[in-house]
Order: sequence, then structure tokens, then C-alpha cells
Amino acid sequence: MGKESAIPVENESGSPTMRTAETLLRILPMALCVAALVIMLKDSETTDYGSLSYSDLGAFRYLVHASGVCAGYSLLSAVVAAVPRPSTMSRAWAFFLLDQLLTYIILAAASISTEVVFLAYKGDVSITWSQTCGSYGGFCRKATASIAITFVVTLCYVGLSLISSYRLFSKYDAPIAYTNKGVEAAIFQSS
Amino acid sequence: MGKESAIPVENESGSPTMRTAETLLRILPMALCVAALVIMLKDSETTDYGSLSYSDLGAFRYLVHASGVCAGYSLLSAVVAAVPRPSTMSRAWAFFLLDQLLTYIILAAASISTEVVFLAYKGDVSITWSQTCGSYGGFCRKATASIAITFVVTLCYVGLSLISSYRLFSKYDAPIAYTNKGVEAAIFQSS
Repeated sequence: MGKESAIPVENESGSPTMRTAETLLRILPMALCVAALVIMLKDSETTDYGSLSYSDLGAFRYLVHASGVCAGYSLLSAVVAAVPRPSTMSRAWAFFLLDQLLTYIILAAASISTEVVFLAYKGDVSITWSQTCGSYGGFCRKATASIAITFVVTLCYVGLSLISSYRLFSKYDAPIAYTNKGVEAAIFQSS
Repeated sequence: MGKESAIPVENESGSPTMRTAETLLRILPMALCVAALVIMLKDSETTDYGSLSYSDLGAFRYLVHASGVCAGYSLLSAVVAAVPRPSTMSRAWAFFLLDQLLTYIILAAASISTEVVFLAYKGDVSITWSQTCGSYGGFCRKATASIAITFVVTLCYVGLSLISSYRLFSKYDAPIAYTNKGVEAAIFQSS
């Protein structure tokens, strides 16, 4: 039994096709994160009413930071995933936890920025928040583009966390199955 | 090989302790969702400046809907998890996908409501959004309480999606391991 559970751990990342696919799926959100980051960083507009920059809004500052962290992690994890080496349990756990965490961070960034752009377009009469996009149309359009890209990144990360949870948990046996396999092994040996 | 993979699927939800633990972990977010829902629904304040209700803000309306859906799903899934019956692959996939979806929905609801309360407390000078909580202090405190509960629900769902992904993917073998097992089975049979 010991040997049987050791073999899949060593060979798990062996398929070159699967490794290439995962590496590409990690490089794609990196490129998208950089794009979202650059668009948001360059997003400022000066009109007759004054000037507005992304840094005036907390949600957009958070989006920039989240995109930066996401781009960095995507690059690092792509490099790690590309190198053919034995996959260990701790590496699978690290990928799983970090992928999950990044998914939540980037989803939160996309959500709160969407809410701010929504409020900036529609305003809110009951709490007297003005329709900022009426004055800063170009600013709002650029912000919307950046947020749309961030949502695509979120989708990539949902897929990546699915893959990494498959990679991690397929190394474990099903909860009760372990006992059954022991019994079957005993039957095999006695026959 | 066919029998070996069939047995764990049938017995997987067999442990009564594990079943009770999962049922309780699904009832807890249900209770919390109902609490967050009720607090938010009763959240309205009338002052000298006018009156403000949760329904005036899109983010809070979304939080109410998300909490309602989450409470309903938590109840249903607790009932399904409590009944001792053979766990099938399709049931494991349904739990996995729905748990993931609910985690993302409830996280988004908590995030955007946090952003709105943050803006209501701090305001934003550059886009002339006023500090609404200066006038409606009680409203903001209740909203904050509801959001805090929603974040606890999010944590519960992060745990639940971890459990359901373990339950699903531990039924699969590791990617390459399948071939190795086939080889081992052949050796077993020939000996």
C-alpha cells in the first residue's frame, strides 16, 4: 500500500501536455492583470469641473494593488508549474491555498470597483451622491474596461483553483474507501 | 478495477460523525444568513435630514437577496447532507459547484456592501460624495453589523467548499496514477 500511494505523488506532474496547459493558463491572467493595472494607472481626466484620478477612489487603489499581486503570483506560479520536478504534497497544498486566496482577492477587487463605477454612473438620490460619470465620462469608460479585464482574470482563477483542488485532493483517497482497499488487498494476497 | 472504484462511491458518506459535522456546518451559515437578512431588512432611519432605508442602496438590496438565496441553499443542502444515502458522483459535483458559486456570491455581496459603508463613513471629496453616516449613524451601524455577519458566512462557505472539493476530487485518482495502478493490478493477477 505504501508504494502504491507513493507512485502517483512522484509522477503526478509528469505529463508535458498538462504542464504546458497549466503554465499557459497561469500566464494568461498575468498578461490580463498587467493590462488592467496599466489601464487603471493611466486613468485620470481633467475637465472644467476639476481633475479626477484613480487614486482618488479607494476601490480603484485596491484594484491596482490586487492586480499587481495577482500578476506577480501568476508569473511565479507559472515558472514553478513549468519546471518538471516531482510534485510533493506541500507544493500541492501551497498551490491550492494560494490559488483560492488569489481568487477571493481578485473577485473582491472586481466587485467593489464595479459597485463604485455603478454608483458613479447612476448616482444615488437618497444619499445625495452625484452622477460623477456625467462630468468624467472618459475616466469611467477606462475604469470599466479595467474592471471587465479583472473579471476575466477572476474566471481564469476560478478555473485554476478548480485544477489545483483536483491536483491536491485526487492524491487523497475517499474517506471510507481506504478501509475497503485494505480489505481488497488482503483478498488479493490470499487468493 | 470497476468494483474497486464503485465501493468508495457507495460508502463515502457513511460515517455518522462526519455527516453530523457537515450538517451543522451547513445549518450555521443558514442561521447567520437569516440574522444578516433580518438586520438589513429592518435597517431604516428617519432624521431631520430625511429618511434612509436599505432599499435606497443597490449594494444592500443585493446583500439581502444573496443572504436569502444563501439561507435557502444552506437549509436545503443541510437536509440533503443529513440523510444517510449513497453518495453519487453527480451529487458530489452538484455540492461542489453550488458551494463554490455560493461562496463567490456571498463574498461579492459582503465586499460591495463594505465598500458602500466605507464610502458612507468617509465620503469622497474629489467626487463630492458626502459622509452620509454623519447624518444617519444608526443606519450605518446596523448595516455594518449585517455585513460583519455576512463575512462570517463567507468564512463558513470557504470551509464548506474546501470540504466539498475534498469529497469530490478524492473520488478521482491522481492524473498519472491510474496507469500505474493498472500495471500493479496486472502484476498482482499474474502472481
